[in-house]
Order: sequence, then C-alpha cells, then structure tokens
Amino acid sequence: MIPNLNIVPFVSVDHMMKLVLKIGVERFLTELAACIEEDFRRWHAFDKTPRVASHSADGVIELMPTSDSRNYGFKYVNGHPKNTREGRQTVTAFGVLSDVATGYPVLMTEMTILTALRTAATSAVAAKPLAPRGATCMAIIGNGAQSEFQALAFKALLGIRELRLYDIDPDATAKCARNLAGMGFSITTCRSAQEAVEGAHIITTVTADKQYATILTDNMVGAGVHINAVGGDCPGKTELHRDILLRSDIFVEYPPQTRIEGEIQQLPADYPVTELWQVLTGAAEGRRDARQITLFDSVGFATEDFSALRYVRDQIVGTGLYQELDMLADPDEPRDLFGMLLRAASPPGAVAA
Amino acid sequence: MIPNLNIVPFVSVDHMMKLVLKIGVERFLTELAACIEEDFRRWHAFDKTPRVASHSADGVIELMPTSDSRNYGFKYVNGHPKNTREGRQTVTAFGVLSDVATGYPVLMTEMTILTALRTAATSAVAAKPLAPRGATCMAIIGNGAQSEFQALAFKALLGIRELRLYDIDPDATAKCARNLAGMGFSITTCRSAQEAVEGAHIITTVTADKQYATILTDNMVGAGVHINAVGGDCPGKTELHRDILLRSDIFVEYPPQTRIEGEIQQLPADYPVTELWQVLTGAAEGRRDARQITLFDSVGFATEDFSALRYVRDQIVGTGLYQELDMLADPDEPRDLFGMLLRAASPPGAVAA
Repeated sequence: MIPNLNIVPFVSVDHMMKLVLKIGVERFLTELAACIEEDFRRWHAFDKTPRVASHSADGVIELMPTSDSRNYGFKYVNGHPKNTREGRQTVTAFGVLSDVATGYPVLMTEMTILTALRTAATSAVAAKPLAPRGATCMAIIGNGAQSEFQALAFKALLGIRELRLYDIDPDATAKCARNLAGMGFSITTCRSAQEAVEGAHIITTVTADKQYATILTDNMVGAGVHINAVGGDCPGKTELHRDILLRSDIFVEYPPQTRIEGEIQQLPADYPVTELWQVLTGAAEGRRDARQITLFDSVGFATEDFSALRYVRDQIVGTGLYQELDMLADPDEPRDLFGMLLRAASPPGAVAA
Repeated sequence: MIPNLNIVPFVSVDHMMKLVLKIGVERFLTELAACIEEDFRRWHAFDKTPRVASHSADGVIELMPTSDSRNYGFKYVNGHPKNTREGRQTVTAFGVLSDVATGYPVLMTEMTILTALRTAATSAVAAKPLAPRGATCMAIIGNGAQSEFQALAFKALLGIRELRLYDIDPDATAKCARNLAGMGFSITTCRSAQEAVEGAHIITTVTADKQYATILTDNMVGAGVHINAVGGDCPGKTELHRDILLRSDIFVEYPPQTRIEGEIQQLPADYPVTELWQVLTGAAEGRRDARQITLFDSVGFATEDFSALRYVRDQIVGTGLYQELDMLADPDEPRDLFGMLLRAASPPGAVAA
C-alpha cells in the first residue's frame, strides 16, 4: 500500500521565499546553475518542443513542457507588460513535476520567483564559456523584477563585482541599487544605456516592453564584449539592433523556439547559430578570442524549468516548506471513482443523519 | 488596490466531491452539459490546438489548452492503464482557468472527478441529436471508473432507464451495478459484449486498455443504433472493428486531434466526418433516419474542460468549497520581486534578531 496517493506537495510563494533565504540566494543560484548545466549536457535525453503559446492583445500565456525518461515537467507562465499598471506582475508562473512511469504529479510550485532565479542561473551558465576571461564589470539595462537575480548569478558564478545600471525609469534603477547594496558590488547608476555599457565586459539587457525596441545600437557594442540578451523573448519583442547580431557569434538554447521568439527573429531562418548544449558538451567552441562579440540570445527553455523543478523537489525534503494538496482522486479501488464520490456523502465514522 | 493578488482558489478532490453532492450528480451533469453545448455552439470563438502529448512506454501525459477572448483554460491529464495494479488511477487530472487580460490564474481544481463528469456530459450532448428517438436502453461495455457517470448523464439528458453492463472483469460489472442500484435504472449484467448489445439503442464503449482492441465486431452492431465510443482516445488505442466505422456516420469533436487519437485513426486521413459543433449549430444534420448507424468518436477536447472549469468557477462562489493558494508572487511594487524576497527575511512587525 502506498500512502497518501492523493497528495501533491505544493510550494507557495511564501515557502519558496523561505527556501531561497534558508539556502541563501547565491548558493541557490549556484546549485541551480549546476542542475541546469547538467541537463543541457544530456540534451538528447529530453523530449523537446517549442512552448505552446496563446497570444492576446495584452500578452501571452504559455505552457512549457519537457521530459526525460523519468520525470515530466511543465511550467505555466504569462507575459503581460501592462500588468504593472494595476499592481500585478508582468510575469507570473507555476510549475509541476511528474513521474513519467505513473503520470502522477510529485511537485507543484510557484515559479514566479523560481523563474527569475532559473533565468539568471541560465544566463550565468551560458556566460561562463562565452564571456571575456576575467570579466568583472557588467552593465544591466532594464532594472525591473529580474535585474537583481542576474546580478547575483553573475557574481556567484563569474565573479562580477562592478555593476553599471540603467533603466528608462530612474526609480527602477534606484530600487535595484538599493536592493543590492551591501552585497559586495561596486554600483554605478547611469543616465543612459550608452553610459552604462562604458567599460562593461558583459552587457545584460533585461527590459520588459512587448515590442521591437532598440535598447542597444550598433555603435554601443565594442569588440570583445559578451551580450546576455534576456528581455527579447517573444514574437515581436526584441532589444538589439539587427547590426549587432550580424557582428556577433550567436548562441541559443533551442533554435526552433529562439527563431520565433528571440533576437534572431530579425534574421533569416537559416542564419547560423550555435546551441548552448553544444558548447557545454565541448561539441562546439565557446569564446575563441578576445575581440569576438558573443551573444547569448536567451528566451528561456523548458529544460531550465525542469532543472529548477527537480532542484526544488530535492531541496524541500525535510524542510516542511510545502503544503500537502489533496489533488488526486484516490479511491480505495482505482476503478471505483464513482463509489468514492457516493461514500463522500457519508464518510466512515459519520453518523447517518 | 486589488486585494489578495497572490491568491488562487483551489478545489481539492474532497471539495469537488462535496460540491458535486451538494449540487446533485444529475443536476451537475445537466448544467455542465449546457455549458459544454454552449461552448460548442460558439466554436469559432476558441483558440484550438491538438493536445500536447508526451508518450512513454507506460502511458501518456497531456496538456490541453484553449481560450476564448476572456478566459484561458488548460488541463493536465495522464493516461497510464497499468496504474491500477498499484492502486493508482489510470487517469488523473487537474486544471487551471485564467484571465486572458492579465494572464493570472483564477481557479485551480482537481479534474479527475471533473473529467469523468465532463466526458459523460459531452457524450450526452452528442447523443441528443444522434441517438435514435425514444432511446431508453443503453449497453455499457467497460464498467470501470467512468461507467457510472456515463449512465447518469444518459439518464439525466436522454431518459435512458435500462442498462446492459459488460466488462471482461465481472467484479467491475458488479461494482458498477452496485453503485447504480436505487438510482432509477433497470440493470442487466451480461456475460459478453454480444449479450450486452442485444436490444440496446445506444452502445457506450468505455474500456481502458492502451492497445488496438476490438470490443465490438461488425456483426454486433445492428441498424439504427448510436455508438458512443469513449475509450479509444490515444494513438494505438481503439475499440471498434474498422468495418463498423465504414457502416456508420461519424461525428467528432475536433478532427485534427481525433484523426490521431480516435477510432478514425483506422481510416484514411480524408475520410469524411462531421464535427459536433456543426450539428449543434444546425450547420450539419444529426441523425437522419431510423436505420442509420451514428458513431460519436469521442476523444475529449480542450473546450469541454474549459466549459467544466468555468462551470466550477461559478459554482464554488459562496460555498467555501475551496482553499486559497498563495500561488502568485505579489510584491508591493511589481518590479520589486527581489525586494519582496529580501523582506521575507524580516517581515513587518518582526523583531530583528
């Protein structure tokens, strides 16, 4: 007899925050990055498909499933840039990890916070073989909900110590600088993107507008930098001028998805790109020389969420940082779903009315 | 200020059972059928896609999304026939309804019980224009978890009063007959499928084996019957001999999905079928004459789950039959996700350690 077949552990927002703080943000990012890298290295073990997107006037709702032979994971995520006007998040998410052998979910969790962490961890995983050697200074253009996570991932995994922050809204920059104060960074707040990129070894673009935008123009990108382009992640939403792409070596997660959603939607469908898993397994080169411009055209892929789900599943054990959801019908006899319903009217031990 | 932006109402298995019993099974099925029919009648309002299936050796895990301009819904559902050996359900499910304008989920619910109800309600919606006039007797071949729901839907919506039950496992038949005792049926338990179909106006096949099976052979199906084929619902899983299909007029939910998953996977890809929405809107004929064999090749479509989700959302109001899940991160300032995380370390009112 297997106990509690009806129960699925659920990690709420509050529990996720407690889990992250208990582990420590930088350690969490480092361990999560290791899971993400491990899963990219076994790329062929995964059943991969572009995310299933439902677009509307104000945004998009997406399902991002993937599986290896043992687990299946998916994330529900929305992107609604106008949400912030009414106090809502642009991006919210939750996800589920399941057992492939039975189809039963084994974890449900909030993924709004977890997505910010996994996106930052993935950026750092990509930057390790792509960023210039000894990079210490990063520009962050777009200082919204994801910016601090990016900063800490690059501190923990690449040794970034100097940040140059810019956002069209100075309040966002002030918020980012305030949140990161005392965490070991030297922070410069800048009045333009042009100013922010001066002297930066790595340029992270992480803006939220759902439109074709030009956060970086060609003249702003000097030889040798690594661009971590995070914000351009759906059809019609890009951040970089096309000319930058033509000067860069471009690295992507999963081409069938990135060609639709990433910066490279500006380029012909057969424009050469290198897949991140190829670099991480040694099948392709990362950075070749000091003058090369490398571009990680990040859109976020389902395997990264899978990695995050399995990491959280392992980390919550013994912490009590989850609720038990009565989510799966569990009749005494599997074929007797209706009997279970009937008996709910008079549970064992109840006195008949 | 919108209160409780972090909260999503969750209907557990226990709450779903209480809700169904409070409303009454037959009334629930009748009202749900009305929602399903209403949504089929506005077929073109929906964003439709075949479900996204992940197949493995032992089963399948599927995501079934759809949306109209106001709401988005999806269901997670598995199908693992061997599960029952270890006390698990063959099919479990849960689903989410969201607001298209914000992407925020507005309901999460168990859907194992709800799927059995919506499948039965859909069968009855299809049978109304397809079954022979004045049908009172239904054979049910396959007496597992879904059989009683089918019986009650056909009682409530079509006036079925006589049931002829058969399953390869006599215990399943006994269970079904026991559960339906005293509910207004005349029940005959049969020793073969051949015996079960004798005199039946409607034949419901709802078996669970994941393989090509022949629950009905051609000689068993007489003129004028309506076949409600529910069990054949994924690639490689069918219930009817191909010759029956060739003698029938075939009605389906969504051809791109049914051609992959339904009985008609046995037929050429251009074999003519009629879509259920066409019949329900009057764009196509249902039953034309008393000798015609009609076949509803049911596989289950996302709009039916959408209908079920919106029905449950409306029904739980004021009942207390849900929990409030802390599922969406809700920082005071939307762009300050990281600040919310930091402040979780020292909540307002807490004394600094």
